[in-house]
This record gives sequence, C-alpha cells and structure tokens, in this order.
Amino acid sequence: MSWINNVRKVVPYVPGEQPKAENLIKLNTNECPYPPSPRVMEAMQTLSANCMRLYPDPAVSDLRQALADYYKVKVEQVFVGVGSDDVIANAFMTFFNSEKPILFPDITYSFYDVWAELFHIPYERIALTEDFRIDPKDYKRENGGIIFPNPNAPTGVLEDLSMIEEVLEANPDVVVMVDEAYIDFGGVSALSLLEKYDNLLVVQTFSKSRAMAGMRIGFAIGSETMISYLNDVKFSFNSYTMNQTSIAMGVACVKDDAYFKDIVGKVVATRERVKKELRDLGFSFPDSMSNFIFATHETIPAAELFEVCKKENIFVRYFKKPRIDNYLRISIGTDEEMDQLLQVLKTYIKQ
Amino acid sequence: MSWINNVRKVVPYVPGEQPKAENLIKLNTNECPYPPSPRVMEAMQTLSANCMRLYPDPAVSDLRQALADYYKVKVEQVFVGVGSDDVIANAFMTFFNSEKPILFPDITYSFYDVWAELFHIPYERIALTEDFRIDPKDYKRENGGIIFPNPNAPTGVLEDLSMIEEVLEANPDVVVMVDEAYIDFGGVSALSLLEKYDNLLVVQTFSKSRAMAGMRIGFAIGSETMISYLNDVKFSFNSYTMNQTSIAMGVACVKDDAYFKDIVGKVVATRERVKKELRDLGFSFPDSMSNFIFATHETIPAAELFEVCKKENIFVRYFKKPRIDNYLRISIGTDEEMDQLLQVLKTYIKQ
Repeated sequence: MSWINNVRKVVPYVPGEQPKAENLIKLNTNECPYPPSPRVMEAMQTLSANCMRLYPDPAVSDLRQALADYYKVKVEQVFVGVGSDDVIANAFMTFFNSEKPILFPDITYSFYDVWAELFHIPYERIALTEDFRIDPKDYKRENGGIIFPNPNAPTGVLEDLSMIEEVLEANPDVVVMVDEAYIDFGGVSALSLLEKYDNLLVVQTFSKSRAMAGMRIGFAIGSETMISYLNDVKFSFNSYTMNQTSIAMGVACVKDDAYFKDIVGKVVATRERVKKELRDLGFSFPDSMSNFIFATHETIPAAELFEVCKKENIFVRYFKKPRIDNYLRISIGTDEEMDQLLQVLKTYIKQ
Repeated sequence: MSWINNVRKVVPYVPGEQPKAENLIKLNTNECPYPPSPRVMEAMQTLSANCMRLYPDPAVSDLRQALADYYKVKVEQVFVGVGSDDVIANAFMTFFNSEKPILFPDITYSFYDVWAELFHIPYERIALTEDFRIDPKDYKRENGGIIFPNPNAPTGVLEDLSMIEEVLEANPDVVVMVDEAYIDFGGVSALSLLEKYDNLLVVQTFSKSRAMAGMRIGFAIGSETMISYLNDVKFSFNSYTMNQTSIAMGVACVKDDAYFKDIVGKVVATRERVKKELRDLGFSFPDSMSNFIFATHETIPAAELFEVCKKENIFVRYFKKPRIDNYLRISIGTDEEMDQLLQVLKTYIKQ
C-alpha cells in the first residue's frame, strides 16, 4: 500500500460534541438558542422541486446582493461560502502563500493552526497578554499574513477598531483577516476600515447571531481586487458550493432585520444577567461581548465542573490546553436553559 | 499592494452557462430533466426551524449509512461532499502529493487540470485513441496518481471493467480515481473492484441520475483506510459541509429507488431515440452511455449549430478545444425538449 506515502497526513480539527440524546441543554458550540426567522422557513417551503434538479447560480448573486445591500458595499466585495470555515479555508489558500510565518494569537479559534498545517503554511502563535488581550505591538514583525477573531474565541474579549487599525497600519504588505463570527453581540465591525485598507478581509457567519448553523453560510467582505482573487481560487476548487436551499434561506434571513435584532438583543440581555449570577457564584471571566462566557471558578477546577454539568445533561465546552485549562466556555442559551445551568452550578458549588 | 505577491493565482474553471431567461431549453450542463422524487421534497418540507439553528451532524451519518446500505459497503467506506467536485478536490489534496505527474485523458472533465494547477500537482494529459477510447497501456508509466471518468466526459464513451482493472493492476502504488458521474445511465460501476484493489476510489454524484444538482451532493466509496485519510483532510478544511437540507433530502433520494430507476430509464429511452434521429440528420457520435450525446455533423460546423440553437433559446455545450471543436455536447432533456431541438436542427440543416 505504498500509495499511502503520498497521502497528505493531518491531525484534523475536532468539532464540539453534537450529542444526540433528547432533553439535553446544548451550550457547547455557540449556536443561537432561537430558531431562524419564520421568513427563512417560508423561503424553504416555497422552493420548487424543479429548482432542485438544476445547478444553483454559481455566482450566488441573490445572496451576495442581499449582503451587499445590508452592509452597504458593492456586490463585487462580497464572497460567500459553506460556513465561515469554508470562507477562511479558501482565504488561507488564496492569500497566505509567503515563506514567512502567518501570525495569530496563542489562545484563539482552534482551526487556524489546522488550516496552516493542511496547506503547509508556516505560522507563529503570538501570546495574548495576561488578561487575554491582543497587543498590536506584537504584530509588528515580519510575517506572511495575520488572522484573529474579534471578539476573540474562546475568550469573548472584544478589541476596538484602533487596535485593528494599528495592526493594519503596520502590515500593508500582507492580508489581515478579522474573523467576526461574534461581532453582532456587541462589537463594532471592522467593515468601516475597508475604505482605507485594501489588505483587510472581514469574515462573518450565519451560524451564531443569524441562527443558521444548520445551513452552513459564511461570508467575507473585502476590496474588489481581494474578493476577485478569492473567487478565482474558490471556482477552481468547487464552482457550486451554495445549494438552492441555503441561497433562498440566506436571502430571507438577511432581509428580516427586525427578527435578527430581536434575537441578538435577547441573547445579549441573557448574557448580561448570567454574567452577574456567575460572579455571585465565585466565577470570574474576561468581559464577553460574544454569545458565550469564558469562565473560571475561584475554587473548583473547570474539568470538574464540566463533568458535573455533563452528568446533568448540560453540555458546555472545556479545552484541555495551556493557559485555558481551568476555563469553561459556556454558550448563552435561553433564559430557561441558563437558569437550569446556574441551578446545577449553585447546587454543586454550595454543597 | 504587495500582498498581491502572495496570492495563489489561478485560471478558474468556467462552469456551463446558467442562463436565467424564461422558456429556454437547457441542454448544456447534463442536469436531469425530471425533478427529484416527491419523497425528497417531503423530507425538506418536514424539517423543523429548530434544526436550522443547530450544526448538522459533522459525520453525516444518516446519508453515509443510506449510501452504504444501497451500495452494500460499510459506512466507513463512504465519504460525502458538496457535489462530486468537492469530493474530487478533497481527494486530489489528500492523495496526489507525489513529485511524479498524475495522469488523465487529454479529452476529459475540464476540472482535472484546474485542480492540479490549484494544488500545484504536476500532471500529464494522455491522448485518447482516435475513436475517443482510453488505452490502458498508456497508463503503464511512472505517475503520481490517475483519474478518469467512466463513462468519459464530454465524449460519453463507456469503458468496461477489464480496462479499469488493467489500469489498477499496473498501478498498485498510486491512487486510481474513477469518476462515475454518469455511470447510472448504462454503465457497470467499478465498485465491485473495491474488494480486490485498496487503491481504488469510486466517485459518484446526485447531480445527474439523481436529479439533485441544486442540492450539491457527491460521494466517494473506497477502502476504509482511504476514506479515513480523506475524512481527515476534509475535517481539516471544513468540518460541517453538508447542511441540514442536503442531508435530509439526500437520504430521502437514496431511499426512493423505484423513482430513481424510473427517471433513469426515461432518460436512457429518450437518448436511444435521439441517437437514431441525430444519425438521420447527418450527425455522428461515439456511442454514449451517459445522459448526453457528443455529436458532430457531416457538413455544418458545431460552432455554427451552437449559435443556431442559442438563437432559438436552446442551450447546448460547445467546447472550443483541440480535437473536439467540431462537436456539440447535447444533454438529454425530456422527449418534448429533444423534439424541439431536433426540429430546429432539421429546419436549419435541410434549408
């Protein structure tokens, strides 16, 4: 079996558990606790059988136009993909082809090093400060590109645009990607910097604030030149990635802005209440502007609390990794779900 | 803008036209003229809003199990992706990492060289014989892997399993991919060779015989070892590619075998009738076992006939490429659509 010698061998990303049991409380993959807009389901229901036999529009014009209108950019500045993972994977392949290492934080979305390994891109992890902040001075060194989430994951820490602008200012010769998966929960998007910096790529997703993780839609907005290069690579990989349902449902989602703002508002309100209650229970955490809280307890180890919750059918996320192995990442669910979590924690901590 | 120096620059694949006008007859991208099974649409209609907010099953177990049951293999032998393009792109990335060139026919699916260019894989195009056949002796040379469609595209020529076995026999140390996008229209699948050859990967799609081009579903079947490597790369690229609708609709499609056989039978019957009528009009073509006919006319250039059809709102495919620039690739539509095409051709040719 010497064909195995030519295999690209990788250590794949391990996604959060998708447990199938009934009656569980799933606070482990930062999904939205509310369903998508009724308009989204209507858009699905009205699709014809006939459209299923036909290839979808490879340019995905309807969805890109809806996003262009919403974010007030040109349609040529919008790229869409099968979740933001697909978007970022394509962007790594397109833009990170230097011999120099790309840079990203040591504590961050755990897919960045996986993509770098997959595409044989050299990389360096830049340590966050003690309080989990990105120091822009650390990104003033030779590099082949930069990526970080804002707010960062799994910390939830939001940086303001001046930090991002400092990084962009110092790195005009490489592409800087800002992964804004969680930006809608209280952050200010870097989109406004696009006019000034043609090396900026802003990536967002429908999986969190838009309640559509199940439909796999992500997008990037950048300069027309940048998006054109990204499309060339994407069309060389797979010309038709967005299927008829995701296009129709994605458009309906973008158009129902009132619903979007309503569910995001609810998640934010729940998060702020839960922050207070977690503090009362002895937890501390960097202030989160995302749809999760990254919390550590003053006396009880995170690994222990993870098991306590799991036993009660409540799934949160625990990363057994340097610097963060005493933290739990708790997605914000409905008020009722969070009350059940808080009750389980209270009972265990106070016993 | 020196970030442009690090861009992976490619000449992307150009998909067949997806014209949006009403009342056109679309015979240019080999779609099925019949809609998918009513069971497929029912499966979509019954999906809940709640499932849309949740990540889909990353292992896509339901769909892989349905395919495993149907093709009588283990679920561990089945890989699924966003159309067979996604499947083959991932397979190129996973298995074609030799310094030696991969081999494929000079006249074939026009994506193979695009993927090779994208991933910087060296390649050699092996000329088909004069009558568009694959000669297995041509594949007995040093190489880093082999891929060809069976039936081949855009010729429609089917090779029998003895040819494929001869190629496999001669190449135990590389992966041999057989792209069976059109196999259901009269061919015998290479799946039966899997027990004997662990370096064989068989790729199929829901876009042609299963009438679901709009839903982007492709799959590969190979040895458990091979599929495990392929999954590792896929999970390193994007863990969640198949959305909730494509999984549910794909399962329903596989389970309605009677409908599948019915529509395939109709396409084959129409194809055989059209072959006869095209011959009567002065066309010749390699005998097609696919859902298209690759035809050349005895006196009128293909480019001219392409324009004649287009003027009548009938779209067929014309490739301006060496050896095949006097051929039209005509997808098999409904009987009514084919009658309209034949009428247009007859009027023009007889005038």
